Amino acid sequence: MKRACIVSIGNELLNGRTVDTNAHWLSGQLLTFGIPTCGVWVVGDEMDRIVSSLTEAAKVGDFIFITGGLGPTDDDLTRQAMADFLGVELEFRQELLDIIEAFFTSRKIVTPSINRMQAMIPKGANVIDNPIGTAPGIYAVAAGKEYFCLPGVPVEMRRMFDDMIRPRLKNRQGGPVSLTERVSCYGAGESIIAQQLGDMMKRGRNPLVNCTVNGGDITLHIVAEAADFETARQMIAERKRQIVGILGSIVYSTEDKTLPEVVGQLLRQKKMTLATAESCTGGLVGKLITDVPGSSGYYRGGWVTYSNELKNRELGVPEERLKKYGAVSEQVAGAMAQGAVRRTGADAAIAITGIAGPDGGTEQKPVGLVYIAVQIGKNLEVREFRFAPLSREMIRQRAALSALNLLRLKLGV
Amino acid sequence: MKRACIVSIGNELLNGRTVDTNAHWLSGQLLTFGIPTCGVWVVGDEMDRIVSSLTEAAKVGDFIFITGGLGPTDDDLTRQAMADFLGVELEFRQELLDIIEAFFTSRKIVTPSINRMQAMIPKGANVIDNPIGTAPGIYAVAAGKEYFCLPGVPVEMRRMFDDMIRPRLKNRQGGPVSLTERVSCYGAGESIIAQQLGDMMKRGRNPLVNCTVNGGDITLHIVAEAADFETARQMIAERKRQIVGILGSIVYSTEDKTLPEVVGQLLRQKKMTLATAESCTGGLVGKLITDVPGSSGYYRGGWVTYSNELKNRELGVPEERLKKYGAVSEQVAGAMAQGAVRRTGADAAIAITGIAGPDGGTEQKPVGLVYIAVQIGKNLEVREFRFAPLSREMIRQRAALSALNLLRLKLGV
Repeated sequence: MKRACIVSIGNELLNGRTVDTNAHWLSGQLLTFGIPTCGVWVVGDEMDRIVSSLTEAAKVGDFIFITGGLGPTDDDLTRQAMADFLGVELEFRQELLDIIEAFFTSRKIVTPSINRMQAMIPKGANVIDNPIGTAPGIYAVAAGKEYFCLPGVPVEMRRMFDDMIRPRLKNRQGGPVSLTERVSCYGAGESIIAQQLGDMMKRGRNPLVNCTVNGGDITLHIVAEAADFETARQMIAERKRQIVGILGSIVYSTEDKTLPEVVGQLLRQKKMTLATAESCTGGLVGKLITDVPGSSGYYRGGWVTYSNELKNRELGVPEERLKKYGAVSEQVAGAMAQGAVRRTGADAAIAITGIAGPDGGTEQKPVGLVYIAVQIGKNLEVREFRFAPLSREMIRQRAALSALNLLRLKLGV
Repeated sequence: MKRACIVSIGNELLNGRTVDTNAHWLSGQLLTFGIPTCGVWVVGDEMDRIVSSLTEAAKVGDFIFITGGLGPTDDDLTRQAMADFLGVELEFRQELLDIIEAFFTSRKIVTPSINRMQAMIPKGANVIDNPIGTAPGIYAVAAGKEYFCLPGVPVEMRRMFDDMIRPRLKNRQGGPVSLTERVSCYGAGESIIAQQLGDMMKRGRNPLVNCTVNGGDITLHIVAEAADFETARQMIAERKRQIVGILGSIVYSTEDKTLPEVVGQLLRQKKMTLATAESCTGGLVGKLITDVPGSSGYYRGGWVTYSNELKNRELGVPEERLKKYGAVSEQVAGAMAQGAVRRTGADAAIAITGIAGPDGGTEQKPVGLVYIAVQIGKNLEVREFRFAPLSREMIRQRAALSALNLLRLKLGV
């Protein structure tokens, strides 16, 4: 089986500032083609360290992915390091400079002279186009190994992998493969899911089911090893069916859709529109909904009523209710959702009010207490959640996702 | 100067499931002692890969941190790999088994036989106590290098580092140190900043200035190497003053504050309140503002007017104006900001309208076109931005940050 190695380059990866998410993302993507990653080397912007990592990686891997160090500044050494490693010179390519200059011209900026450096690539290597940045990638083959140099900026790296490398890997044939697909769950903890799935998650099973947790969002990874893709795909499909049978409505996607995407799909199917009224999440629910391209088809908009005054004046939450029950209460959450429906004429509304912390909690209403209201037509449901003890960020994230999940369940899975 | 290397062990780190946060955390901690990390090796549960990574790490590092592979199961190979690497046998330690058995007994569980394996450590090595788990750590010295093996479970690894390793590193005296501090910038590209800073970013300079980019958010890392902390700190402070002198208002923080934190600080100082009116960012600006604890002190709230209807009805954007200029226009952005101030009585407002894509662009109004309005008191300013060709996510991120930055500049840096 062919294996990959990843070399991640950049001082920022070694000083506690930036987590190397590129290696993580790449290794996950490569597995979908049945290519396991056997090692990651993280090195700073030092020529000898980069070259020795390339040398080590080439000993064990067949595909070597290199990210970072393709920028225009002096500490961007990947071009030169690749040339040294391959034993060739760097070569200036006019057509690359033309593309870089066009990039700046479209922004009405004169191309800085340092960006000229980005038009150099090792002799004999090929260019991997970068449609959204100035750093072209490099593709080289040497001694039967393939080298892919990509920028460290995640959005550029991913786009180039998707556009240029994914199709190339897809066309490769033969050999045993390892495939991974995912089932996305919301609404139950990791240990409860693990209990329900039982033996499926035991080591050594094939397919094996693993579990990762991101806040309340739980992803089950089904890894199948087989002689060919078709067999692996069938094994995964069968296991997916079993998991959905066991977990039921906890599963929100078997196709890598996000919760906002699934909610959007349901709203579209039912030809319904949505409005939001947020307090402690401060706009996060709206942001998540509008992450989805085309969300303007069902999302009318919403309010961030961070102050009581706006809750009252804009959403019509009665002042007495705010006084009697407090802004963080079932009653206010419900009135916010009703106000959002009334003001927008939307078919459905989500409202959230809570205490995200770190301050503002009391014994009766501790940090992490959140009320979520979902109004669909005339039907209102308000639920209480207690997310403590978590960080402000995590409480807000879980509140927003729980609201979307509640809407999903009420719309019918 | 002494340097560290990190070897992270575990299949889960190489299959897209788990991000290696241990290496990130450790490298950040080590820097506070002036110890830079010169490389990270991520390897799976394979004996030969672990041993060869230890061999490579020992060539360049003085302190080698190894995390993972200390559990009780078959695929936990770190103990044996360390013994092989050091050229010694594994040795059974009764006192370790006593501790492991006490751990299970206190939980009223009979010690599983597989955990006996965790009482083995390489001959001549020392134990690093694990107060919260069954996996003891290993400390060994060989050929002047120090090796620290810690569990992969982050909470155990961090606790053992804090309790046992931190005091040891703190007590080391003398020797050269490396310190890193940061300057945060917004409003100019990487190459333009690099041009302005010139020689400061040239390789080999001390202090050295490196640059990382996250969307439009640019971080300059100032790395100083000196005989002692005090000297390194002074070198960094002096370089920071020079950078601020050159880049001026492009610098928004020299203390690791985020843009929303800086904006919040300014609003607080000026005793001003803020409202938001968002279209294409869908709530992201509100989310960013309310990421900051205590933002309720200055943030009144806002609108996500995703539909024209809401722009008109809630913010009073005249219908003729929407028809004549379109929702994505200078005129509508301005009217949204004015509406937000009028409706909330806030001292300032930010409004954003644009085309985040991927669809909805035209030749006149392409994807990435964004208008940002900032109203402060009676003063309104609207700016046009063109963020294409970027992803929807990046366009929204840059639009939101550019709006906060424009507000920062208008509030006075």
